[in-house]
Amino acid sequence: MSKIDPWGKCEIDDYEASMDEFGIEPLKNVKLPKKHFLFESGFVYGHKDIGLILDAIKKKKRFVMLTGLMPSGKMHLGHSLVVQQMVYFQSLGAECNVLSADVEAYLTRGLDRKKMEEISEDYFLNYIALGLKKCKFYYQSEGSVEYNNLSKFLAKKVTFNEMKAVYGELSPGKIVSALIQYSDILQPQLKENGGPCPVVVPVGIDQLPHINVTRDLAYRYRNEYGFVMPSATFNKLLPGLKGGKMSSSEPDSAIFFDDSDVEVGRKVMRALTGGRDSIEEQRKSGGRPEICPVFAYHSVFNSKESERIRSDCKKGRLMCGECKKELNKVLAGFLKEHNAKKKEAKRKLKEYF
Amino acid sequence: MSKIDPWGKCEIDDYEASMDEFGIEPLKNVKLPKKHFLFESGFVYGHKDIGLILDAIKKKKRFVMLTGLMPSGKMHLGHSLVVQQMVYFQSLGAECNVLSADVEAYLTRGLDRKKMEEISEDYFLNYIALGLKKCKFYYQSEGSVEYNNLSKFLAKKVTFNEMKAVYGELSPGKIVSALIQYSDILQPQLKENGGPCPVVVPVGIDQLPHINVTRDLAYRYRNEYGFVMPSATFNKLLPGLKGGKMSSSEPDSAIFFDDSDVEVGRKVMRALTGGRDSIEEQRKSGGRPEICPVFAYHSVFNSKESERIRSDCKKGRLMCGECKKELNKVLAGFLKEHNAKKKEAKRKLKEYF
Repeated sequence: MSKIDPWGKCEIDDYEASMDEFGIEPLKNVKLPKKHFLFESGFVYGHKDIGLILDAIKKKKRFVMLTGLMPSGKMHLGHSLVVQQMVYFQSLGAECNVLSADVEAYLTRGLDRKKMEEISEDYFLNYIALGLKKCKFYYQSEGSVEYNNLSKFLAKKVTFNEMKAVYGELSPGKIVSALIQYSDILQPQLKENGGPCPVVVPVGIDQLPHINVTRDLAYRYRNEYGFVMPSATFNKLLPGLKGGKMSSSEPDSAIFFDDSDVEVGRKVMRALTGGRDSIEEQRKSGGRPEICPVFAYHSVFNSKESERIRSDCKKGRLMCGECKKELNKVLAGFLKEHNAKKKEAKRKLKEYF
Repeated sequence: MSKIDPWGKCEIDDYEASMDEFGIEPLKNVKLPKKHFLFESGFVYGHKDIGLILDAIKKKKRFVMLTGLMPSGKMHLGHSLVVQQMVYFQSLGAECNVLSADVEAYLTRGLDRKKMEEISEDYFLNYIALGLKKCKFYYQSEGSVEYNNLSKFLAKKVTFNEMKAVYGELSPGKIVSALIQYSDILQPQLKENGGPCPVVVPVGIDQLPHINVTRDLAYRYRNEYGFVMPSATFNKLLPGLKGGKMSSSEPDSAIFFDDSDVEVGRKVMRALTGGRDSIEEQRKSGGRPEICPVFAYHSVFNSKESERIRSDCKKGRLMCGECKKELNKVLAGFLKEHNAKKKEAKRKLKEYF
């Protein structure tokens, strides 16, 4: 079995093929209450126990969607996929929780606490601007007594060898980080927060180890806390503009929410595409949207036009320059609107804590 | 180097000889501001950095004495030695903190939380009855956010191999327990509790590993928190009445605070002594107070008479039966007075939280 290190690099080339290996169920077989391009396009492709969530939606029972952000770098457009997914589940009744993983960031990366607060607040504002309505924002470092105790109590029912099998080499910092994550995922089910209920966590495959251990622990503590095993959805990442991964530490690999129009234009125009070596060849054979970062952006931020773009590209009717110009325009419009909403969000932020 | 397991059995036959091995300084070379039989008799025999405390006493600066109790069994008379030591340091100006290690007890022994509260409260009452005045009592499970964060942050600067070298085999529960202990020892120095100051922890040798790692961590976090390296005093244990260790799980090995006069009498009369095989031989060669549990009790609970008793015993003038009867009377008197004070303490307990 491939080993996934949630604190290191995670390279998955073929998401579909990895599902069997990692015990993830495909989402394409699941009928969701409302269509959404994130599922249609396969960006959100897999799940664990989504049935518990669908059941809660159907019966109008309480359920929670929870995500965490790592306050170690600026928020880029790739991060917005998870927010769009939250907005979707919120429209179906989810209570939403967003936490800043500041304790974990300190333990695994050693960031400055003041700096982490600035970054977290910027994330929170972006989340609101992206359409998240009522939502509980919080910091790991400001957890309640029950939450803190839970993170310690959980240590009792997981063995060292289990953790080692899942994470590989361990350090006290990694063990504590992992315990905090389990506690984060389970805390919506604490009495003080409303008690046991289905919880769904939207994650990338790199977070799978945390999900798996948390599910085991939820089961092992079912008598003490009555926990329901948490569900998860699995999403792909937007590809980097230069190919490879998008990364906060490589500014040209991603478009950031605070990029100027000029920067966005420059990054898009220099982006890698699925185009051919010459215009002639592209006219003849068509482009390859399936490997094209520019098309990936279209499919998320210009989703209504993405079918037309895919088809024109494949038929050799749409050249990369033109396609990039369209994306440029779309992103400039998106960011302009976003920043206006963000300004407004700033005034409302206090209500979210 | 011998390995000490703070969660297992700890067998030290020769305390004096163990000091060099464990880097503990002898207390007999230290001039204390006031005499006390605990130090005179060698029950408290060693220290680390007691100089910081003596300096604070001299300069009338803030210092803290902190101890923890494990709420896993009833309090016995052996536990009172540490309280007497606290009363002594309190008379010299120490701020006193007593914590119930309920989270650790849960992690390492899995006790019921309700039960732990009952036991802890009984300990607290005994502490007050034994003469502790102003004192902060608290539970690990009710720690502040800063205390909880500290226990997690500390994980960053201790490596797995360091912990393994000190504790031997590790489990997530042991790692978390240890981190909580470090946080307990350092928390009097948190800003919210008054900031950095000398802290002294009275411990048995079994707690040495925690003391050593905490001292290292205090140093490693000196820039972030300004910690002063904590000091420690090391005490011997009262011997078990049947020889060997005193243990809450072996009722006849110890006298408990809630034992009736009849039970005390029975236990003392059946206790092992340092007496000889026959009265004749004892008259001729004298007894051996240095290995006698009954004499150990005299030296703590009848300290004013202990020199007379030692001398008469060694000269063959005092027989074991008579000596036991005297101890019986002393303990009955002590417990009667103690229980009256405890009743009073019950009314005052709230003021201590």
